[in-house]
Amino acid sequence: MNIQDELDNFREIIDLELKKTLDVDKSYQKNIYESMDYSLFTGGKRLRPIMNLKSCQMFSGEFEQSIPYAIAIEMIHTYSLIHDDLPPMDDDDTRRGRPTNHKVFGEDMAILAGDGLLNLAFETVLRYIDKREENISFRKAIRALKEISEYSGVNGMIGGQVVDIQDDRETMTKDKLIFMYEKKTAALFQGALVSGAIVAGANDDEIEIIRDFGYKLGMAYQIRDDILDFEEDIAIGKLTYLNFYDLDKAEEKVEEYSRDAILILDKLDNRDTNFFKSLTKELVSRTI
Amino acid sequence: MNIQDELDNFREIIDLELKKTLDVDKSYQKNIYESMDYSLFTGGKRLRPIMNLKSCQMFSGEFEQSIPYAIAIEMIHTYSLIHDDLPPMDDDDTRRGRPTNHKVFGEDMAILAGDGLLNLAFETVLRYIDKREENISFRKAIRALKEISEYSGVNGMIGGQVVDIQDDRETMTKDKLIFMYEKKTAALFQGALVSGAIVAGANDDEIEIIRDFGYKLGMAYQIRDDILDFEEDIAIGKLTYLNFYDLDKAEEKVEEYSRDAILILDKLDNRDTNFFKSLTKELVSRTI
Repeated sequence: MNIQDELDNFREIIDLELKKTLDVDKSYQKNIYESMDYSLFTGGKRLRPIMNLKSCQMFSGEFEQSIPYAIAIEMIHTYSLIHDDLPPMDDDDTRRGRPTNHKVFGEDMAILAGDGLLNLAFETVLRYIDKREENISFRKAIRALKEISEYSGVNGMIGGQVVDIQDDRETMTKDKLIFMYEKKTAALFQGALVSGAIVAGANDDEIEIIRDFGYKLGMAYQIRDDILDFEEDIAIGKLTYLNFYDLDKAEEKVEEYSRDAILILDKLDNRDTNFFKSLTKELVSRTI
Repeated sequence: MNIQDELDNFREIIDLELKKTLDVDKSYQKNIYESMDYSLFTGGKRLRPIMNLKSCQMFSGEFEQSIPYAIAIEMIHTYSLIHDDLPPMDDDDTRRGRPTNHKVFGEDMAILAGDGLLNLAFETVLRYIDKREENISFRKAIRALKEISEYSGVNGMIGGQVVDIQDDRETMTKDKLIFMYEKKTAALFQGALVSGAIVAGANDDEIEIIRDFGYKLGMAYQIRDDILDFEEDIAIGKLTYLNFYDLDKAEEKVEEYSRDAILILDKLDNRDTNFFKSLTKELVSRTI
């Protein structure tokens, strides 16, 4: 199967599972479900949950075992976008060509919908683990969720957003920018990949290899983003890699990170790494 | 020990544990720790974490086992206050006599600090569970956190806040108001009590008894709040129990809920329920 077909297949699986999670009895608070649903279904690429499921599969797990984690990660990603778009943050009116959550549901509901999605991410996985039979994989189930919680928290994704809001042209440095990219972008890639690997029963070496891969892929992805959004970012005065390096250097870094990412995958000599190699090439050479 | 001394003792334990949780290596995102710290230490009564620890103790658990849950619950309570105070929500400038989080750290940081605390709540407990030896209490550890996640989520605390923001004088009904109180106030009391009981190894009947107790106590507590804040609430146009019932009826309901709460405790005939009986009397007769 070529990578586009595979991505489409997995996207469908994830969409269906997300729908199921929201399909519960509701009461007077039903509007928050509409608000969460709106942002969960705005044509996202489902990149992080797909990485999670494919990582699980690569390490010989049934990808179905990792579905609660995959949708939790997509919920976390989505909540961060809702909060990021709020007026005190980036103040964005549109995302992927549609009005942002707070433009449709109001700022108060957007705050709660974000909170709700973050909470629901944990709730979903905890409910799934609680229903399992007690067995050896119980500990793995916890460890996978713990990894996600660390990558999404104040020393992960949220930590990156802190640097994003607090530093400006005067105070931003190369070091801080790299820290921000590690946390804002690479962290959730790593959380997705590592948790899928843990659920599958990958060994410690394999887990560290996929963690490193996630880091390199995340950094390549983010700098590619900067290159693609170069003109738009200048227009809105956004600080990116291109405030510190020129376009040639940025292209070079994308090449370097993605080459490293693929070399890291070669260490997994007993595993079929073709999907992640293709994904890396696909993502770093993308034009949108 | 009288109840005031006991509350003071436990408050100290909780403050110390909360401090420890924030005492980690920080990097460029260190400001968010200041923001979280500011709101965690504004003279809160630590009611919910104390309920958690005392519930664990009442059911013959070592209360130390429940400490990660206790501080997680306080973090969840605190994040909800930070977000609740934001301008698009209640737009409060002060809380407990001090400037609200966003007044000190800005709205953007207050949003992230709230997100950070919610995430850290789960992170803290998951890290604790992950470090445990695998044994029979592993499942209980998960179940306790699952209960908290459900009580704090869109069908719990957040659900109550949704009704709070969306309903006004025209649309609020008695039913919705009771739903809101169940979710906004009673839910987190229940989460605290039930999780402590589960960690301690309480049996299913006991868990349901303490769950019912939490409900009654939460409702009594909230209506007492309405009575205490009566004049202030009128001034700011806040919708409360007293928009539907007069003061006598409200006093009667507080009496009824607290009497029920104490009667429920009597079902736990093998347990020392004195602390919770005293706490109930203390909370419903309070004047601040």
